[in-house]
Amino acid sequence: MSRSLILNAFLMTTGHHEASWRLPHSSVNTGTDVAHYQRLAQLAEAAKFDAVFFADSPVVQAPPAQRPAGALDPILLLTALATVTKKIGLIATASTSYNDPYNLAREFATLDTISNGRAGWNVVTTAGDAAAKNFSQYRQFDSTQRYSRADEFLTAAVKLWDSWEDDAPVGDKQAGLWAVPEKIHRINHEGEYFQIEGPLNLPRSPQGRPVIIQAGASPAGKNFAAKWAEAIFAVQQSLTQGQAFYAEVKTRAAAAGRDPEQVKVLPGIVPIIGSTDREASALADELDSLILPEHALANLALQLHVAPSELALDSKLPAGLEHVVDAEKSTSRRDVILKLGYGRDLTVRQILRELGSGRGHQTVIGTPEQIADYIEESFTGRAADGFNIMPPVLPSGLETFIEQVVPILQRRGLFRTEYIAETLRGHYGLSRPQSIYSEAREKLVGV
Amino acid sequence: MSRSLILNAFLMTTGHHEASWRLPHSSVNTGTDVAHYQRLAQLAEAAKFDAVFFADSPVVQAPPAQRPAGALDPILLLTALATVTKKIGLIATASTSYNDPYNLAREFATLDTISNGRAGWNVVTTAGDAAAKNFSQYRQFDSTQRYSRADEFLTAAVKLWDSWEDDAPVGDKQAGLWAVPEKIHRINHEGEYFQIEGPLNLPRSPQGRPVIIQAGASPAGKNFAAKWAEAIFAVQQSLTQGQAFYAEVKTRAAAAGRDPEQVKVLPGIVPIIGSTDREASALADELDSLILPEHALANLALQLHVAPSELALDSKLPAGLEHVVDAEKSTSRRDVILKLGYGRDLTVRQILRELGSGRGHQTVIGTPEQIADYIEESFTGRAADGFNIMPPVLPSGLETFIEQVVPILQRRGLFRTEYIAETLRGHYGLSRPQSIYSEAREKLVGV
Repeated sequence: MSRSLILNAFLMTTGHHEASWRLPHSSVNTGTDVAHYQRLAQLAEAAKFDAVFFADSPVVQAPPAQRPAGALDPILLLTALATVTKKIGLIATASTSYNDPYNLAREFATLDTISNGRAGWNVVTTAGDAAAKNFSQYRQFDSTQRYSRADEFLTAAVKLWDSWEDDAPVGDKQAGLWAVPEKIHRINHEGEYFQIEGPLNLPRSPQGRPVIIQAGASPAGKNFAAKWAEAIFAVQQSLTQGQAFYAEVKTRAAAAGRDPEQVKVLPGIVPIIGSTDREASALADELDSLILPEHALANLALQLHVAPSELALDSKLPAGLEHVVDAEKSTSRRDVILKLGYGRDLTVRQILRELGSGRGHQTVIGTPEQIADYIEESFTGRAADGFNIMPPVLPSGLETFIEQVVPILQRRGLFRTEYIAETLRGHYGLSRPQSIYSEAREKLVGV
Repeated sequence: MSRSLILNAFLMTTGHHEASWRLPHSSVNTGTDVAHYQRLAQLAEAAKFDAVFFADSPVVQAPPAQRPAGALDPILLLTALATVTKKIGLIATASTSYNDPYNLAREFATLDTISNGRAGWNVVTTAGDAAAKNFSQYRQFDSTQRYSRADEFLTAAVKLWDSWEDDAPVGDKQAGLWAVPEKIHRINHEGEYFQIEGPLNLPRSPQGRPVIIQAGASPAGKNFAAKWAEAIFAVQQSLTQGQAFYAEVKTRAAAAGRDPEQVKVLPGIVPIIGSTDREASALADELDSLILPEHALANLALQLHVAPSELALDSKLPAGLEHVVDAEKSTSRRDVILKLGYGRDLTVRQILRELGSGRGHQTVIGTPEQIADYIEESFTGRAADGFNIMPPVLPSGLETFIEQVVPILQRRGLFRTEYIAETLRGHYGLSRPQSIYSEAREKLVGV
């Protein structure tokens, strides 16, 4: 099968640019407005996107004084989107550190069932003491513990998703036999973090398991991804860096005994689109002018674990920040900032502009043709199997991308013009996993 | 304000009768069929019901060989119903023993937000070791611990729901001030079971807090209800018993310093409806004939903690079963069975018929007028503020109730013909709670 470009719509309130809510036409309470997200999902589906995607964290993330904060539970939100769409995939972020395998496995199986096979789970381990303090822990697990728990969490979740074989329910009214008991399995999971008897209290879902997605860039995160991820959300800051990451992901997957084609690499991209270069730059400038620099500087200092006074807007980052380690903070996040500062040699003001529009994801400012060129080059150059589209402003940024960039990608034969599958696995070109318990049975009886 | 009859539609797969799935017209996979539940919720809304309600348990409850087992996560399912309805309340059961306050408080706040103020939470503590074993516990908490945890859970959840004052988000684009930080509160909950810093990561929901419902009949359950419940799901087996329970609930609520009118008593009722007595009895007999008695007997023995051989279909219950105590089993459930056996002097076969149709809830077999009479008598006689309608067969049992019983209740002036409120609190006649943090502020500044 030829490769097919993947496009997700990464949705967030009024858009990914932190000041987007201050634009005159932005509605300020989009974070809790289900109709806003339903319209966006329908737009994305009409354009044949693979999926919509929501990030998440069990804390108030943004300083709520400065920008929209607080978010609907993403699994519930996607359930509300499932009822007004038919084909588009539905990807929610959820934490293995602050959930329970039985409850979360059931939630994703429910979403997959309600949506007829469109659920995806972006697995995160959630760095930071702030989250821990909402869950009766004084400090977070350290990174090793977080990933060790995540690995066991996935192991247990797979057992739960597989605990009902696909053909367990038979509904034989005559015999009074609703399901075949031998095809519903206790999982008897006995691990370091979890002991779970099972089975799950739900028949197996249409995709068998939700699509597993992951984004960690630390060594532990990469090992986890090689074992579990079917798609990887990446931060791409240049074609070369993207190609190196892509090659590494595929190599690691192969080394873990998996088919590299069954692991998709999906960088984020913030497209700032104008009909001319100048128009695109003007939009970027308008957005940047709405950032309050003193707030942004304070946030940056917090991320880098230095005092705000150590940073000056029109200077480069001070040297040596890579040695200021704080286990509480996300490594991936800090690495992105250091790559901007040291790797691309940007000033603090320039770094703040980059972070402000897409939190370190590649911002591409230009005409629809230029945006399409960037995507094509990354796709054909094997830096990406597709992209997480992060509109700086919503809904307008998604509308513009759909009206002006998608048709170019379609004309170039890179992107579908009609859905050819019904499930998220189908859109991504991923196979449907058989239940581990059916496999065991088939081995036993020699089928 | 005059009292207004409350009607909930308690929905469950093909109906509450355990053999309903074996009827020729029953669809056997209704437990995972969101369209089935969407149609039922729309029917109930067209008839101006107060709410739809789903029970839940984090285990496979019914023996899946014998009847439909496994259920969609009820909070997700209600989210899917919220998107296709406008007014009807949405009540989900969720356990305080096997959830986390931060996650569950957020889920209910999300449901309340997505539904514009229609969420209700039926609080359960979940008896049984089987559930514990799905959550890394070898044995369940005992009843005292379960209710002590539930009490602290509610205390913490209220703090979380109240942590954003209603007017915290202001969306001042000019000033770049999205929310007033002083109106978003850390809760700093430090309890025996939970330590939670907060705030919740979601602005306050339309109802402030979901409506709190409870059903425990044990002494600990009744104390919990007196403190927290805004509605109580009851098992009513006669008018006299119902009146005694009703009076006790209202007295306990008053003793706890609450307005007794703000605690609604809602027994379950299984209406088996025919245009004549004979037609109703024929439907009841058809359903009962589909029960497999050996399975039912085995289940009953399990509930009573005796060997199946100690029970005989056409004999009364053996004496002394009230002394066979098993802390693992739900007290409420066993009490219901003993009341049927010792209180109403039924044979085992008769007990199985009662349990088969509504698990011990009052089954009323008769014409629409007779069903309406029963409801009116309970309501005016202060045995009930309304009912959980438990159709023995779905969708037909709900359709018949709506077409034939609801119009009688409306003609008699007992039940609304149009919604006069927008939220579940509005339908039930419950007030909207102010945030504890706004109250504190107002006291401080002497407003």
